Amino acid sequence: MIHPTIARLQEVVAHGDDSQIADLLAGDVQFLPPTYWKTWTGRAPVAAILGHVGEVFSDFRYRRIMGAADDWALEFQCKIGEFDAVGVDLITLNSDGQINQFEVVMRPYKSIGVLREAIMARVTSDPRFLQYQSALS
Amino acid sequence: MIHPTIARLQEVVAHGDDSQIADLLAGDVQFLPPTYWKTWTGRAPVAAILGHVGEVFSDFRYRRIMGAADDWALEFQCKIGEFDAVGVDLITLNSDGQINQFEVVMRPYKSIGVLREAIMARVTSDPRFLQYQSALS
Repeated sequence: MIHPTIARLQEVVAHGDDSQIADLLAGDVQFLPPTYWKTWTGRAPVAAILGHVGEVFSDFRYRRIMGAADDWALEFQCKIGEFDAVGVDLITLNSDGQINQFEVVMRPYKSIGVLREAIMARVTSDPRFLQYQSALS
Repeated sequence: MIHPTIARLQEVVAHGDDSQIADLLAGDVQFLPPTYWKTWTGRAPVAAILGHVGEVFSDFRYRRIMGAADDWALEFQCKIGEFDAVGVDLITLNSDGQINQFEVVMRPYKSIGVLREAIMARVTSDPRFLQYQSALS
């Protein structure tokens, strides 16, 4: 059975309503992006990053949802500009049913490179990230 | 409950015994690599590619195994040279319990780039791939 948080995540993402993702995140959520070997920590910076990712991805669709209890793998497909991509959101829930780890793996290499450039351009021009710098380690 | 094919795949990979992966693959298995947006088709070429991947990865370890019935997500971590990587084997089984689709997604970008170079060098110097060229589409 799909955990209510996972069902809600699918719903929120499907509606492109990234502002509501924050409600699903633990206060100390960790986000591990496909683009580099670093970790973002904290609800506000992670929600902001996920918001940017949601705007860079187009034609986003979840495919298979696999998992149980606190451990979930959400397979997705999308476009990044003109490039196709497939990925998995690797989600860990805490005992309150909030997302406390969100790790994203993708293919292929080229599409992740395009995503990397797009996110870097957005983050460096988003004033919120001046105060989020300490959230990246 | 873990499907016997998935349990066997974990065992085979854990022992670095890539020659035995072929037994788990459908004749018309498709392999979709993390490195480029193409598909390898057929047991022999896919087993050969997976063998090369197994030799490029070090410190390989499966983490969470998620899924049910014919749909599985096998989370893993490994090193590629000096670089860390995390990935998911997205597996689809056919009605005979053989793997008929094997799609791999990973992070981060840099590590996939190193993998890409290493696999390209191996494939272009492996004489078997002269006859496997038609398996790539």
